Amino acid sequence: MSDQNSQTLKGFRDFTPSQMAVRNRIKRILVDVFESFGFEPISTPSLEYADVLLGKYGSEADKLVYTFEDRGGRLVGMPYDLTVPTARFATNHQNELPLPFKRYQIQRVWRAENTQKGRYREFEQCDIDILGTSSLLADAQIVAIIDTALSRLTIPNYQIKFNSRPMLYACMSEAGISEDKYIAAAIAIDKLDKETPETVKSEMANRGIDESAISKLFEIIDILEEEYPSAEALVEGQLLQNYPTLNDQVLVLKEIATEAIRMGVTSLTPSFTLARGLDYYTGVIFESVVTKPKMGSITGGGRYDQLIPKLGGPDWPAVGTTFGLDRISDIIAETGIWSEIPTSSANVFVPIFSSELLPEVIKTAKWLRDNGINAEEYLDPHVKLEKQMKYADKKQIPWVVIIGPQEASDGTVVLKNLKAGTQETILWEDLAGKLR
Amino acid sequence: MSDQNSQTLKGFRDFTPSQMAVRNRIKRILVDVFESFGFEPISTPSLEYADVLLGKYGSEADKLVYTFEDRGGRLVGMPYDLTVPTARFATNHQNELPLPFKRYQIQRVWRAENTQKGRYREFEQCDIDILGTSSLLADAQIVAIIDTALSRLTIPNYQIKFNSRPMLYACMSEAGISEDKYIAAAIAIDKLDKETPETVKSEMANRGIDESAISKLFEIIDILEEEYPSAEALVEGQLLQNYPTLNDQVLVLKEIATEAIRMGVTSLTPSFTLARGLDYYTGVIFESVVTKPKMGSITGGGRYDQLIPKLGGPDWPAVGTTFGLDRISDIIAETGIWSEIPTSSANVFVPIFSSELLPEVIKTAKWLRDNGINAEEYLDPHVKLEKQMKYADKKQIPWVVIIGPQEASDGTVVLKNLKAGTQETILWEDLAGKLR
Repeated sequence: MSDQNSQTLKGFRDFTPSQMAVRNRIKRILVDVFESFGFEPISTPSLEYADVLLGKYGSEADKLVYTFEDRGGRLVGMPYDLTVPTARFATNHQNELPLPFKRYQIQRVWRAENTQKGRYREFEQCDIDILGTSSLLADAQIVAIIDTALSRLTIPNYQIKFNSRPMLYACMSEAGISEDKYIAAAIAIDKLDKETPETVKSEMANRGIDESAISKLFEIIDILEEEYPSAEALVEGQLLQNYPTLNDQVLVLKEIATEAIRMGVTSLTPSFTLARGLDYYTGVIFESVVTKPKMGSITGGGRYDQLIPKLGGPDWPAVGTTFGLDRISDIIAETGIWSEIPTSSANVFVPIFSSELLPEVIKTAKWLRDNGINAEEYLDPHVKLEKQMKYADKKQIPWVVIIGPQEASDGTVVLKNLKAGTQETILWEDLAGKLR
Repeated sequence: MSDQNSQTLKGFRDFTPSQMAVRNRIKRILVDVFESFGFEPISTPSLEYADVLLGKYGSEADKLVYTFEDRGGRLVGMPYDLTVPTARFATNHQNELPLPFKRYQIQRVWRAENTQKGRYREFEQCDIDILGTSSLLADAQIVAIIDTALSRLTIPNYQIKFNSRPMLYACMSEAGISEDKYIAAAIAIDKLDKETPETVKSEMANRGIDESAISKLFEIIDILEEEYPSAEALVEGQLLQNYPTLNDQVLVLKEIATEAIRMGVTSLTPSFTLARGLDYYTGVIFESVVTKPKMGSITGGGRYDQLIPKLGGPDWPAVGTTFGLDRISDIIAETGIWSEIPTSSANVFVPIFSSELLPEVIKTAKWLRDNGINAEEYLDPHVKLEKQMKYADKKQIPWVVIIGPQEASDGTVVLKNLKAGTQETILWEDLAGKLR
């Protein structure tokens, strides 16, 4: 057998029980938060017609979509995100959905990218989106949910950065950049958190943007950053004197900040260089970052009012965000903030003292389960007790119930706590009550 | 835009919130049962090297694996089941795992099959497996879990059929079929629930099996069915007089039946024509069926002692089963046994009476959520109250809290129950207590 047979593909990962314990707890917290705001689950396929996916993200992203020809000669693709499949879902189910339609969706997505820290080829997104309303209350609620969820997840020192594509474009217009360069410029600016300003400026120049326009753009952005350093400054601050054409967009951000703060959000911060890398955004954009460990954004999203019509669907504006399950798991693992999470499913282990006592073991484990206690009996009567105990220890099962010949005839059991190293003999019929 | 843009691929499906409510409840019940027996979750990728997947299932199944060449020129495949990826996982993680390793895994798998009732190209499997022991207690526990889970799911009139590959092969040997035809014969026999006996017999003849051997085989199977019509008959019955070479296998099935019955199983039935379609089975095989609605098996599994070594892994015997989430959902939908399942996430709806009262709405919804009550405020202050109420009705949210100008100044709210059609005015501060 070749070694390759036991390997996973680069960027694709196995998850062990202890990793799954963290991932499942994150998902449970997210689902609880999403449902507390009235969001409902949907699911879409892991393969779509390729033309559903392509032409929505932008040409750089399109190159990363896994596509292939299936047996029926159809060009198919694996979703790059959940937003485009959801827009396709909305198109397909438009007559059944309440409006606004608030859905959540937790699924794997795939990108044929160069792998690096926090960047995988297969990863899991947890999305919420509100379809069918242009009300800025929807934008603010997405921010409120991000804030509630990250705080419930106990993520340390996160910040929710926000801006809007129209704000960026208004700055570009002021700087004299022509409209056909807006998206290219936005995608270059999006790289500012990974690249130096010089690299970004030269990428913009390479895309045919005039150097003086580039300088002017960064000058305007500096003024905005100075004028509105916080969400509170946006809410309370004055409109711009020198750049009145930007004020419509300032007002939009101000309204979102006002409502988000009213909803209890404290971690929102304007970031006028925030651009997001995908073509489909048309309004507000937001992402969440942590200062430590260094990692890309852990949530990302925005408003995409043209995507559903572009897929042939109804004219539904939409706004939403994704939570990156893998990066959130990585942060939790690296910071050790969830060190107390139990990894064993079973709370009680029942070893087999000897073959003759097997019926007692089976009866006891079943009785505990019937009483709502997760209990695991050992499954091989020919293995020594000592080795069985090592198994319980390796699985970190907290309690062990031993039934030897003496206990069986007395109607008792020995109850051991492996962590505390204590043990006592109790009546068999008291066991379930004691462990519950 | 072409119409194709909003379609899913044939055999691939969207799930709406009401469908997801059923699917999620099934998964929750299965996970509860799996964990109550001490099983722990793992996860494996949705793409594997193709040579991990191919050559394990059999040539007919291999043709149904979705494979393609990725950008790096690697031949990759989408898993046909979760058993082979788990065997690869075991190989990769052999030094970290407690033995026996009891894992569960809930993931999508893909088969490029002709679609029909209960048969999709993308579907979800919920697997449990016990790796690293040949003890028949493990086989019996798998049966006990199937029985516990189907009963907790309230599936009507299910039956767990079982047999073993060595039993089938011993019958074939008695009938004079040569060993190199065993798997081919087993795969033909596996089709007995879909095809007529004549079709199956002619498939066996086409695969080069002598007609007299075929007749003899069915004669032996008839004798077994007559001798051991139930699990109880197996446990209490005599060994075979006329076919002593089969008795080793009768004893294996008898032991599994004995332990399963001791574990509380009542729905187990021997089925000597049961064969299962995959190459990798080496021991006991089992599947669960319901009589109505007519559908393929809803669980299927068995022992596969050679698969992990075949993947280059340790010499770990293994046994397990899958639960077919999609077929179980279909049964629940068709029989209507879960008609009471709520589909709305929110328990309370808070409409916006007028723009001026928006702060009260936001404050109230947040306060309810902070008290553990799922509450949804409407998100557009410019929509008429009547239309907002229709939204709550469509989402089947049970409670509505209305705050008009009178209530706002009195410190009260109007609490309506949409289903009962009742309403009352209560103090604002009593609301959370009342709804909890």
